[in-house]
This record gives sequence, C-alpha cells and structure tokens, in this order.
Amino acid sequence: MESTRRPRLSPAIADLRRAVRELLPEAGLVLVGLSGGADSLALAAATAFEAPRAGLTAGAVIVDHGLQAGSADIAAVAAGQAQSLGLDPVLIVPVTVTPDTGDGPEAAARTARYAAFEQALACTGAIAVLLGHTLDDQAETVLLGLARGSGATSLKGMASISGPYRRPLLGIRRVVTRQACLDAGLPAWSDPQNADPRYARVRVRQRVLPVLEAELGPGIAEALARTAETLREDADALDAMVRDLVEEICEPAEAGIGVSVAALAVHPAALRQRMIRLVVAREFGVAWERSHTLAVARLVTDWHGQNALDLPGVRVERLGGTLVFSAPRPT
Amino acid sequence: MESTRRPRLSPAIADLRRAVRELLPEAGLVLVGLSGGADSLALAAATAFEAPRAGLTAGAVIVDHGLQAGSADIAAVAAGQAQSLGLDPVLIVPVTVTPDTGDGPEAAARTARYAAFEQALACTGAIAVLLGHTLDDQAETVLLGLARGSGATSLKGMASISGPYRRPLLGIRRVVTRQACLDAGLPAWSDPQNADPRYARVRVRQRVLPVLEAELGPGIAEALARTAETLREDADALDAMVRDLVEEICEPAEAGIGVSVAALAVHPAALRQRMIRLVVAREFGVAWERSHTLAVARLVTDWHGQNALDLPGVRVERLGGTLVFSAPRPT
Repeated sequence: MESTRRPRLSPAIADLRRAVRELLPEAGLVLVGLSGGADSLALAAATAFEAPRAGLTAGAVIVDHGLQAGSADIAAVAAGQAQSLGLDPVLIVPVTVTPDTGDGPEAAARTARYAAFEQALACTGAIAVLLGHTLDDQAETVLLGLARGSGATSLKGMASISGPYRRPLLGIRRVVTRQACLDAGLPAWSDPQNADPRYARVRVRQRVLPVLEAELGPGIAEALARTAETLREDADALDAMVRDLVEEICEPAEAGIGVSVAALAVHPAALRQRMIRLVVAREFGVAWERSHTLAVARLVTDWHGQNALDLPGVRVERLGGTLVFSAPRPT
Repeated sequence: MESTRRPRLSPAIADLRRAVRELLPEAGLVLVGLSGGADSLALAAATAFEAPRAGLTAGAVIVDHGLQAGSADIAAVAAGQAQSLGLDPVLIVPVTVTPDTGDGPEAAARTARYAAFEQALACTGAIAVLLGHTLDDQAETVLLGLARGSGATSLKGMASISGPYRRPLLGIRRVVTRQACLDAGLPAWSDPQNADPRYARVRVRQRVLPVLEAELGPGIAEALARTAETLREDADALDAMVRDLVEEICEPAEAGIGVSVAALAVHPAALRQRMIRLVVAREFGVAWERSHTLAVARLVTDWHGQNALDLPGVRVERLGGTLVFSAPRPT
C-alpha cells in the first residue's frame, strides 16, 4: 500500500502552520504583511492554509517602499504569490519614506511601513496584521537593545501581540522559514539590504551572533528570545503597577506638579524610578536618561538639602515633604 | 612658584579613591580581598588611603587557592604589598579547592574563596570584605548570563553590596585599575588563567566583547553594566513582592501544599510565574525551567481540564479552585 500513502508533510511547513494556528484571532479578516522574503512568504503560505480552517479570511498587504530600483516589480511578484496562495484581498501600498529624521534610515522605513499597515487595516476592515518576525529577529533586537543599556525596556524585544499586530513566528528560527519556502516550491526574494553591513542589524546577524554562538555555545539565539519574553513580562507588570501608583500621587502644585516624597520613599527603587520617569514623560513629554532619574530619586532617598535640579525639560525641587516638578526657568 | 606646586594626583588613582570612599561602611575594620592582580591591588591602595580618613581600619585577606605552581609565592608577594600600603591585619588563607562538582572549575574556586573570606571575617571581626570586581567584570557577567536566557535573574550581574561583600569598582573600567597601579608604582601580578580560553569568561573578554564594541560601537561595556543595575532593581522589587504574596497563599492540602487559583489569576504573568517558582523552590527544593513554570501557569490561565502534571521533583494538579503541589508519585 506504499504507493497510496499520503505524502508526509514537511516538518518546516508543519511548524509554521502550528505557530500560525496558535496566534490567529477568533474571527474576521487578517492581513499578512508580505515583503516577498522567505519569512513573510512562509507566513503567508501557512496563513492561507490555516485561516479558512479557523473560520477566518486572510489577505495580504505588500508595502512598496520605493527605495530600491525595481521595487514595484518585487511587490508585483509578491502580490502574484499571495494570490496564488489564495489570499484575498491582496493590496500593494506604495509609501514615501521621509528623509532621515535622525533615527536612521531603518526607523524611517519602519514608520512608513506601519503607516501603510494602518491604512490597509482601515480600508479593508481587517482586524489584524500578521508579521513575519522570527526568533532570529527577536534575538537580534535584544542584542541591539543591549547596546542602549536601558534595562528591560530595551531588552524586551517585540511583543507577540501588540494592538492589531501579531507575530506568530517569534518562536521559529529563520532557517525553518527558508526550508518551508523550499519545501513548498515558493521562490523567496532576497533583500540586498539584508546583507548590507551599514545596518547595525545586519552586523549583529552576520558578525555578532555567530561569535556568540561559537564562544558561548549553540542555543544563544533561543536564550536571547527567552530573555526577551521574561523581561517583557517583568516590564509589563512593573509598568502597570506604576501607572496605577502615579494616578494616586500627583497633585497640582503652585508652579507645576507635586508628588509626595513619602509616597515615593515607600516603594523599591525599580518602582520609584519608574514613577519619576512616568511623571516627567506624562506631564512634560520628556524621556530622561537613568542619570537624571537617579538625581531626582536622591532627593527622596539621600536628602541633605540639595538645590533645585535643572534637568532636561523639567525643573525639580524638594519643598518639605513634596517634590515639585515644573517647567524649566527661561534662560 | 611652579616648582613648589603640589604634584597633580593621577586621575586613575583619584577615580579609584572616590569609588572606594562612596562604598565604605560607617565604622569598623574592612578587609580587601587581594589576589595581587591589578584590580584588587589598586583597590587595596585606594582603601589604604581612604579608610583611615573615614575613621575605619583596613586590612587584607589573600586566598591561596594552591591551584598553580608558585601560588604561595604569589600570595606572599601580595601580602608584602598590602603591608607596604599600611594595611593591617594581612591574612593569607590557604584553601583546598574541592574537585569539580559539576559546576566547573571556576565555580569550585569561587566557593572555596568565599569560604575563606567568611573565615577571615569571623577571625578578625571585620565587618566587610571589599572586592575588586570592575565594570568589565560586570559586563562579562551579563554576557555570560545571556547565554543562560533566564531573564533578569541571569542578567542582573553582581550587587555592589551583598551581605558583608562590597564591590566599589563596579563603575570603574579595568584599564583604570591598570593605570592606577602603574601611576602608584605597584607591580601587579598577571594571572595566566585570565588568558586561558578554556574559561568562558576569558572567551567573553577576549573575543565576544571586542566584537560587540566593533560592531555596535564603543560604550557597550558601560551599557551592559547599566543593564545589570536596572535589571537587579527590577528583580529585587518583584522578588520582594512575591515573597510577601507567597506567605499569604500557601495552605497545607491533603497531599501537599494548596495554592488558590484565584490568588494566582489576579496577578500579572511576571508575578504569577515567580510565585509558582518560589512555592516549588521553598517546599520541594527544586529549581524549574521556564517551560515547567509555564505549564503550571496554564492550569490557571488556560484551564480546560488538563491532567495532573508530573514535573521535575513535583506533581501539580488542579482540584477545583486549588492547585495542589505534592511529592512525585513513586515510579
């Protein structure tokens, strides 16, 4: 009976389908964010298979950044692949990437891409965009965050669900998406930017991760992804506590916002410092470095009559049992 | 008047003295943990200068691990340097490193070293041991922790104060301790183990950190140390909350320990998972991996009548509104 046996499903394709199945929403239309590269193409194929079985419809949105010669052709090829997979609707959204605003070309392209996704959500009535970020992307994000050194905030990586965005492949290695495309006979596009060492992310992928694997053993990418997951949980828990606490402790003061020293003193450093950061972010729209936050914390924990602190965007002074946050003095 | 001007103090020596000054205890005898290497030698010199000015006395403890030929001579040289610096008492404590217990030779040597410090504290009546770990050591510790991938616990690095141990140099680069020894005319010993690539820490120092600096920019060691500091604060805050919570929720059950599902459900994942880990660590003496903890958490957050879980060292079953943790069934 050998000849009538059903062909075995490729393990790579099975892994991808399982990952997608676990992260599909309950009902409605979902769009796959498709670049034509192996990660998003494998995601599109798995979604095209799983969505109808879960009672959903699935389409695709292809963002044409217009940054490379032939980008319209690449978008058209990806759109054709999406249609062949049975995805419907398939949208191509051309965007204009605004010139570098200081955060680098990757950030500018990302901003334009998410704006296009928002537009696609609005005009199709879709409830989610599925993104093809893999475990390797997550590990790279953690390493890039290490260089910033701002703790859990910079190490927590990407969320599997964030608003309308879902990332089913965060537990899947990139090599598996490559294999799934091969096994499905889907030719993937290789973005030349993914090999351009001017991008920090490319240097992390090509030079940093291989050295970490060689010197600290295999499994480092998985360890980085696990780290992101647990630090995200920690940051979410602490941020939620701090939001509740800050609601209670801010009072209008004569020249700004008053916060009780006692209310700050009673909490451990991790909460106290997040409370201070949240007050200045919310009331004055500034994001402080750790050194600024610590200077304010010392007005609580190491009080010896310090002068008012003139910090970026905010002046902070202790008056008796109250910290007063006010707009900076005109110079 | 040029010729009578007081010679300017070496900036490296000034940095070290300031760091020591900020972390000295209030009164009593402190011991410098001295290996004869540049880090601890520079720490010894700075402590010999600062301690008397702060009303303290300062001695040194030199641990002779007996692992290398000539280790007694190296210890004797370090003891002589300590005496020349004016430290008193100066102790040499020979230790026997027990053969590898499975945690590697570095862990065995560390265990023996801290036992020797405890002994020195007890027999001198000293209140603190000052250790020469630098910012570079902290950065290396964070990178070694990344490979374990257990979140804040493995990334929080070393504490600046932990029981009787104080680490004044956690904010000082290793290059500064080298320079301070040169400027003070103190010849430092170079431990050949610090260049032996069989040790993971040495590979991190020689191969991983330089690649990170080259690819992600200078300042990566400082960023890693800053990360350790903030993650330590987060872990301390969460661990303290969880200790308080677990006190309240454990009840003796027929066959073990009962924990209310509702009490676990009300908290965010970061707290819930730490609560589960603490219950099994405290009651059954086991340290679970994340996958085990998550399986138990799903009995709370994703209940669909799962069977009892037979996990390492503990059996966990949901009975109505209670999770029952019990000893594993005999097989």
